[in-house]
Amino acid sequence: MRRTLFAALGISLCVFITLFAQAKTPSSRPILQAEKTNLAERLGYSRDAKLLIVHADDLGMAHSVNAATIKGFEVGLVNSGSIMVPCPWLSEIATYARSHPQSDLGLHLTLTSEWTSFRWGPVLPKDRVASLLDKSGYLYLLETEAASHANVKEVEAEIRAQIERARSFGIQPTHLDSHMGTLYQTKELFETLLRVARENKLPTRIFRDQIAAMDYLPSILKPEDIIIDRVISIDPSVTPEGWAKFYTDAIKSVQPGVTEVIVHLAYDDAEMRAATHDHPDWGAAWRQRDLDFFTSDGFRKVLQENQIKLVTWREIGKLQYGR
Amino acid sequence: MRRTLFAALGISLCVFITLFAQAKTPSSRPILQAEKTNLAERLGYSRDAKLLIVHADDLGMAHSVNAATIKGFEVGLVNSGSIMVPCPWLSEIATYARSHPQSDLGLHLTLTSEWTSFRWGPVLPKDRVASLLDKSGYLYLLETEAASHANVKEVEAEIRAQIERARSFGIQPTHLDSHMGTLYQTKELFETLLRVARENKLPTRIFRDQIAAMDYLPSILKPEDIIIDRVISIDPSVTPEGWAKFYTDAIKSVQPGVTEVIVHLAYDDAEMRAATHDHPDWGAAWRQRDLDFFTSDGFRKVLQENQIKLVTWREIGKLQYGR
Repeated sequence: MRRTLFAALGISLCVFITLFAQAKTPSSRPILQAEKTNLAERLGYSRDAKLLIVHADDLGMAHSVNAATIKGFEVGLVNSGSIMVPCPWLSEIATYARSHPQSDLGLHLTLTSEWTSFRWGPVLPKDRVASLLDKSGYLYLLETEAASHANVKEVEAEIRAQIERARSFGIQPTHLDSHMGTLYQTKELFETLLRVARENKLPTRIFRDQIAAMDYLPSILKPEDIIIDRVISIDPSVTPEGWAKFYTDAIKSVQPGVTEVIVHLAYDDAEMRAATHDHPDWGAAWRQRDLDFFTSDGFRKVLQENQIKLVTWREIGKLQYGR
Repeated sequence: MRRTLFAALGISLCVFITLFAQAKTPSSRPILQAEKTNLAERLGYSRDAKLLIVHADDLGMAHSVNAATIKGFEVGLVNSGSIMVPCPWLSEIATYARSHPQSDLGLHLTLTSEWTSFRWGPVLPKDRVASLLDKSGYLYLLETEAASHANVKEVEAEIRAQIERARSFGIQPTHLDSHMGTLYQTKELFETLLRVARENKLPTRIFRDQIAAMDYLPSILKPEDIIIDRVISIDPSVTPEGWAKFYTDAIKSVQPGVTEVIVHLAYDDAEMRAATHDHPDWGAAWRQRDLDFFTSDGFRKVLQENQIKLVTWREIGKLQYGR
């Protein structure tokens, strides 16, 4: 029942977006492609394949994050991640990216600096992006503050600079997303993300449930934009004791199509505890729990038992841009 | 014998500097003060008092450095330190500084970013201090590179900005020094440091042995500049097994006057190991050894047995600027 309902909802949203996009564009491109074949099929899997991206955010932020995420990659059950270019440990993760060119590493475009004891600024000279900075000269602590103060032209310049800087470090990003969702806060910001992503021929995270939350979305999507089916993301309502059960249940419920589970990996160590000392949500212990689950035999087993295959943003980008 | 020789050398250098400075300045200020009374006496101690500043460098660089140095302060045997304003953990140490306003915290003016995996840029907008940046847009890895590329006007602007930024974080610095000695590399750079220090009424580290290495020094010192007597600093020729013996012997040899021992405290933990992974000199294990010694009963005992008192840059600044 749940699968049927989800599939019906998914298809209707897909049709809605496709039709909306068609109404807005004079293009005769194959905009009905998404109706004829589902995303799994378009990616070369069977129509009912259950596909999962296990995506670790915040690479480059701290050594603890880099080390834990690389462990996740090595265990093989975390298969994608995105990098925060303005952060102090960029060089360390760039070294990894250069020596693992087939890794599925995107950019976690960064307009916030959220830990009170440990902070960073923009990539561009501060006087060129004054609207992105709080009184201390760092990026804002909160995504809402960042979005409400941001001059969109400065945002565009900064995220272009982050992409350029990543490339100058030898990172060839496979996708773009937005740290703390700042670029999903307003239509103008999301349009900026979409424009920059398209120009760079990179996919960005759009999923069906966003359409309900972002009512402007259909008006700015194009037929070729790929919409994944679902995102799984834990939240502070889950107790530490309930962590593995939450993820296990969520993964058992994965439906055909492409699901992304967004995880935050780090060690519960001195560096991470100090960074997150006043913010247990997404803090050190939280990230250790994510690391423990997503490198566990339990996770491997639930993937196998539910015939879930791992896919990457690289594959989605190839489909979207015909690389 | 050693003490006599050192004292004679010290006095002769002091006379030399004083006379040289007198020749260069028309001032009738009490330039012979340093001859009449030694520094210990001027600070209010007996003429033969052995005074020691135990100074921890690199605060703000990493959480590991902050935590270890704060431990040193709490144990009470480390009594001074200096902060790197451009570094990512500035906020954490600024919180400590605000809640411990009597701490002897200066600024470790920073023109280098020396760890390959973990880096930082300047305080000023990058386009205003282009000569301070390497190709990656960070401060140079090496002090020699930094000094050879630096435009002195940009250096002056950047170190003024570091002081201003520290104050905006509620840090009231008691002294200035130079990370990796970059500002001691050329006469022009040192003159810049001296000018900025004097304008801010802050003492900066000058010690007698520098005069031999920096032949221009007498020409730019003024009578009121305070020259401490000696600096103790361990170097890579000391084996880990010889660490405590090196410091113990050095402290036993402390002469009357003011000596500064420059230490680098951190934990030998994951963060610090990753930061210093390709640079064992001044690396994680090195800093743990420093932490172990300077919080040890052995250090406390050698101070007591040799009647060595701890003094601070705050006291020197009060003397120099009559605060």
